[in-house]
Amino acid sequence: MIKPFRWMDDSFQVLDQRLLPGEEKWVDIPDAMHAARAIEEMWVRGAPAIGCVAAYGLAIQARLLSEEPAERFLRELMAVKERLAATRPTAVNLFWALERLAAVPWDGDPQAYADRLMDEARAIESEDLESCRAMGRHGAFALPGGRISVMTHCNTGGLATAGYGTALGVIRTLHEQGRLEMVYATETRPRQQGARLTTWELWKEGIPVTLISDTAVAHVMSRGLVQAVVVGADRIASNGDTANKIGTLNLAIIADRYSVPFFIAAPLSTFDPATATGQDIPIEERSSDEVLYVNGAPIAPTQIRALNPAFDVTPSHLIAGIITERGVARHPFSEMIEWKGAD
Amino acid sequence: MIKPFRWMDDSFQVLDQRLLPGEEKWVDIPDAMHAARAIEEMWVRGAPAIGCVAAYGLAIQARLLSEEPAERFLRELMAVKERLAATRPTAVNLFWALERLAAVPWDGDPQAYADRLMDEARAIESEDLESCRAMGRHGAFALPGGRISVMTHCNTGGLATAGYGTALGVIRTLHEQGRLEMVYATETRPRQQGARLTTWELWKEGIPVTLISDTAVAHVMSRGLVQAVVVGADRIASNGDTANKIGTLNLAIIADRYSVPFFIAAPLSTFDPATATGQDIPIEERSSDEVLYVNGAPIAPTQIRALNPAFDVTPSHLIAGIITERGVARHPFSEMIEWKGAD
Repeated sequence: MIKPFRWMDDSFQVLDQRLLPGEEKWVDIPDAMHAARAIEEMWVRGAPAIGCVAAYGLAIQARLLSEEPAERFLRELMAVKERLAATRPTAVNLFWALERLAAVPWDGDPQAYADRLMDEARAIESEDLESCRAMGRHGAFALPGGRISVMTHCNTGGLATAGYGTALGVIRTLHEQGRLEMVYATETRPRQQGARLTTWELWKEGIPVTLISDTAVAHVMSRGLVQAVVVGADRIASNGDTANKIGTLNLAIIADRYSVPFFIAAPLSTFDPATATGQDIPIEERSSDEVLYVNGAPIAPTQIRALNPAFDVTPSHLIAGIITERGVARHPFSEMIEWKGAD
Repeated sequence: MIKPFRWMDDSFQVLDQRLLPGEEKWVDIPDAMHAARAIEEMWVRGAPAIGCVAAYGLAIQARLLSEEPAERFLRELMAVKERLAATRPTAVNLFWALERLAAVPWDGDPQAYADRLMDEARAIESEDLESCRAMGRHGAFALPGGRISVMTHCNTGGLATAGYGTALGVIRTLHEQGRLEMVYATETRPRQQGARLTTWELWKEGIPVTLISDTAVAHVMSRGLVQAVVVGADRIASNGDTANKIGTLNLAIIADRYSVPFFIAAPLSTFDPATATGQDIPIEERSSDEVLYVNGAPIAPTQIRALNPAFDVTPSHLIAGIITERGVARHPFSEMIEWKGAD
């Protein structure tokens, strides 16, 4: 199974996804500072995967600090948690995973507590994998029947989760059911996660994939080449408005024009009842260099201004359904509040 | 003035736009075969510029053949014209320019005829430049009033025409009138003409420009950052359906969603009364390598399939107006038929 992190003996490692598809390089994460850097510099990306790596980073650091006196142990661990939470502003799973570890009851013993944090990180990982498989089942049932072609954006696969994937997990399930004709994967500029990661994952597993430039989205839909769109999410507001990789809103609007159903696939941990609507979601603005350079070479005069929002917000009325591990929520998406409440 | 070709002493030269913005390299075009290669390999691109280079290529070849006996001169010139017409299938200006030269009356004297072909090519160039300036005036008047920001796609500037530009000519005129706040230029994958050419032209002339990835189109419009979209055209069917660079349809659909007026700017030579609707326009499918590689480096496993349509077709109902050298045509675009008839 394709995964973005692994345990080798007693070392936690992440795959440096910036080097894919050219090179598969695993990097040791000996402490929380390395985990923070791996998230910040996007060696690992994808909301569920970020949550897992942040949780393991905190648990690993707790082990390193477990010889310290209790008060100092707790104080330092709190600072480390803040550091991890500051790595990326948009994906809510990051905060959710850290809060889950913070909710582990403290009993005064750093070593035992560190062990329980590690157990909790492992639980987050295994639950994420199970929830991806459940999303796959629910999503494959919700998508149009028969043999279909599907468009997806960015990477929401094994590399973005604890394995299997969210939107790409739905696509994997379709393939397992013999119902997948073709995946149309968008390049996803500026960071090209669709080209570099999604096509690589699918190609490795023998799932049929066609790469398109982000400019070809409307052309492909206008020609009737896809029967559904499935993408992931970084944060879902309580009204269903969804922040996801920049370009998602392009697909949603164009799909609506051609009556192609547009689905979000994301675990309930992505759903943030504290955020009322999409307008309340902070959008990370990343360096203009990501737009101005490709593979380290400039594609424009480097003195000019470039705008680089990492995410956009798709209004809930453009979303046919939000595929979660509990089932598929439909407009007005109130099931998600109940499901989340039952968590 | 920024132009894609020039005469140096008695040599016709084209700027190899594939090397921009890094290098300004002018290449001699000694005969029609070189002109054909320059068009085919996209050293020069942009429908009006292609028309000019094809016309000069044919006129230069006529000079080279002008010592031949009349019958052979005509036979070879006809073959050369076919060769030039076969370089790119979508842009109608190419055929239009070649037919204009073919319509020059033959009087039995190869040398005098070659001179008249050269005069006709020069006339096409100077008319194109004048028509760009006229489009600029008409377009600036048709766009929303006051100081505005405009989104554009691909390159429709001096580099795509005999100078000044079509859609970018409208934007230049806005700037000259002190009405331009900001140009949002899309990268325009796969060939990145927006990043490589449009931002370079505007930056060279001190016109404010912001580069965005093609994925950021909906985000920028959803935030109200632009008040109009202006793009060029490669072929306009008689109902107003417009073939233009892949990604144009993305902009048109998204602009419609946000009630941002979407304009085409193109000379009447782009308008093809023989093509009834957009469905009749052949769409050039280019090599998948353009999608799979950037700057010569692969961005995906190179074994996978990639789809690379060079153009898409925007249905006329999404077009607020077509800016031509005679004025701005509005739905149902019948003025263009009259204007063209009066040509």
